[in-house]
Amino acid sequence: MGDFRSRKVAQAALMASADDTEAAFYDAFQAGDVDRLMSLWSDDDEIACIHPGGPRLVGPAAIRASFEAVLANGSVRVVPVQVRRIESASFAVHHVLEKVDADMPEGPRTAYVLASNVYVRAAQGWRMVLHHATPGQADELQEMVEAASVLH
Amino acid sequence: MGDFRSRKVAQAALMASADDTEAAFYDAFQAGDVDRLMSLWSDDDEIACIHPGGPRLVGPAAIRASFEAVLANGSVRVVPVQVRRIESASFAVHHVLEKVDADMPEGPRTAYVLASNVYVRAAQGWRMVLHHATPGQADELQEMVEAASVLH
Repeated sequence: MGDFRSRKVAQAALMASADDTEAAFYDAFQAGDVDRLMSLWSDDDEIACIHPGGPRLVGPAAIRASFEAVLANGSVRVVPVQVRRIESASFAVHHVLEKVDADMPEGPRTAYVLASNVYVRAAQGWRMVLHHATPGQADELQEMVEAASVLH
Repeated sequence: MGDFRSRKVAQAALMASADDTEAAFYDAFQAGDVDRLMSLWSDDDEIACIHPGGPRLVGPAAIRASFEAVLANGSVRVVPVQVRRIESASFAVHHVLEKVDADMPEGPRTAYVLASNVYVRAAQGWRMVLHHATPGQADELQEMVEAASVLH
């Protein structure tokens, strides 16, 4: 019981910012820890998740089922390599470039994913309400901000 | 000058909710009106837009250039057919299913797009900060909420 309480306190402290929650999200993803990963989401029934190329999943049950499937074979080596932020006192929109390393039959492969992660500040700390992921490319690292200044 | 002012007042009144801003966004999209469409975005330099299968575009210049390209051949018949919302006093996350009708060489075609639209409340009313769009499917109408209750 004491352990449980101290764990909850530690967890709340960890989610003192959207960055903390995001770091915990990718840690849980890498560790294949679905319980931990789901604890980082808001309690709102309208939370949503779109995996690359997948449908829209709405609500905790559908999102949990999807991560259980994704993590069925163990951890996923996914690392946020670039993050941009729009933040206020109560919400945060993060634009993340994820690097995903996988061992394929033909050898190790690296893929990139563009994720939009949205967080809100709740009583228990910052929680995720949206994870929308799209297939990306290695050259996303350069992004299109610079490209725009060429066009204009 | 009077006209300009009354137009600005009317526009601010129109953006009194995230729903108003979203309706104006799809109206501008359908009308092929890039100026109107861009006026609905926040002034934040970190606003971002991902078109289906496209890269991440960050900032007003890159986003404007992309809509000019998308709308170069005139309007796009895009209609939001299903919207789910997470809203607070200062921000709103909308999950939208878009129906897009296009005239292709082989005849009329309909496509579906899953969009995550995020809005923030600014002094001038509700403004868009994120439009992340992903190819969807007609059966997205059923979504995966129901599917989850089967799985659990």
